[in-house]
Amino acid sequence: MADSAPHAGRLTFGCLVGASQLLGLASVVLTGVWMGHYHGGYAWDGSGKEFNVHPLCMVLGLVFLQGDAVLVYRVFRNEAKRTTKLLHGIIHLLALILGVIGVVAVFDFHGQNNIPHMYSLHSWMGMVTVLLFCIQWLLGLLFFLFPGASSRLRALYLPVHVFSGLVLFVLAIGSCLLGIMEKLLFSIMLVYAERVPEGVLANVLGILLVAFGVLMCYLITKEEYKRPPNPEEEALSLHFKSLTEESPASP
Amino acid sequence: MADSAPHAGRLTFGCLVGASQLLGLASVVLTGVWMGHYHGGYAWDGSGKEFNVHPLCMVLGLVFLQGDAVLVYRVFRNEAKRTTKLLHGIIHLLALILGVIGVVAVFDFHGQNNIPHMYSLHSWMGMVTVLLFCIQWLLGLLFFLFPGASSRLRALYLPVHVFSGLVLFVLAIGSCLLGIMEKLLFSIMLVYAERVPEGVLANVLGILLVAFGVLMCYLITKEEYKRPPNPEEEALSLHFKSLTEESPASP
Repeated sequence: MADSAPHAGRLTFGCLVGASQLLGLASVVLTGVWMGHYHGGYAWDGSGKEFNVHPLCMVLGLVFLQGDAVLVYRVFRNEAKRTTKLLHGIIHLLALILGVIGVVAVFDFHGQNNIPHMYSLHSWMGMVTVLLFCIQWLLGLLFFLFPGASSRLRALYLPVHVFSGLVLFVLAIGSCLLGIMEKLLFSIMLVYAERVPEGVLANVLGILLVAFGVLMCYLITKEEYKRPPNPEEEALSLHFKSLTEESPASP
Repeated sequence: MADSAPHAGRLTFGCLVGASQLLGLASVVLTGVWMGHYHGGYAWDGSGKEFNVHPLCMVLGLVFLQGDAVLVYRVFRNEAKRTTKLLHGIIHLLALILGVIGVVAVFDFHGQNNIPHMYSLHSWMGMVTVLLFCIQWLLGLLFFLFPGASSRLRALYLPVHVFSGLVLFVLAIGSCLLGIMEKLLFSIMLVYAERVPEGVLANVLGILLVAFGVLMCYLITKEEYKRPPNPEEEALSLHFKSLTEESPASP
């Protein structure tokens, strides 16, 4: 009986992680269907089909993968920290690559069609998010994966990295919502109020993205799901401080 | 010298709170100027001027006041908990009243001008936010201000209340951003890409709202700025538990 509470906790955690993945995948699929079914699919030819690459890359990279990159610290909270850290960095790198492809797609589409760049609130917020995401990734690499930074520096930077990571995840979702609104009003403004299927599908996509964000933030910030302190790891870290590989002051 | 660190901490906290208030007030003023200067001002006559009441109420109530209602727990973290709690509830009530006026304004404007309600992503997200905000306020009142709830119930509900409060604050900002995008594309779609002053002003408003949100979340979640545990208050609370007025399990 004494074990039932932790078991129930693990079960709840597992269900919530499963639900988050369903919400995230549903968002990616809905974006794909929206651009594929209602806007002619994907290509890299300067047409509207090249624009369609943009939302798909952003939702898949900067929302779904960015969220999952953070979640690995909760899902693998009892695994070796270095492995988790590497996985965190690699998934973030994939997110970054997709984000850059997404930005290039929309800039190229604008360029080929004489559409001005960077005038809308969506573009301002999206660009700030992508630039800060690049900086965050580089700083994360320098502080936590390269052996140069001291434990003290890591410990000082860690809370900034964690807070900025959550902010960037939320900003990415906010930018996607603005993108949905912009795309809808440019495409179906005259019939949006009639609740046409495309409008409803895109609205549902927005709500799914918000639900994914809320659930991920819950899983990431809940004290119970955080990585437990590991005295052995900390002792090792102090002992082999010069190696700076398994410092407690890493996310 | 030993006192210099806490003093510097208090100074930083004061500066950040000041900056947050400047950002919040600037957002309210910019919303007022946008609707006042570019859209003819305010009235309650079913015209576009009645619509203009909507954004002003939402930014002032559900963003600025909602943020400040949470911030009182950080600014007055050394004052009596009951006073802070009352202030928290009263500012939230003001935010709620403004939110309801804002919703009524837009519904009345739609009704008078035969515009369908609740079809856009902005309206879906905004309505979810306002409804959840009402529920959150009522539950807060029942659990933490009415003497009925036991300390155990309060302690169980507290983390849910805190997490939901932050989510609602972020959702309110997200809904405002969507509202800005929608209003801009309905009003100046054909010249938005030319970076006309109205478009730039509204974009800056969006960025200010995001900056306000990020700074508030930082101030609210930073461990150092949280209310320190007060042993006297806790002892009193245990002693006079039946009064359930100063329970430790209140936000």
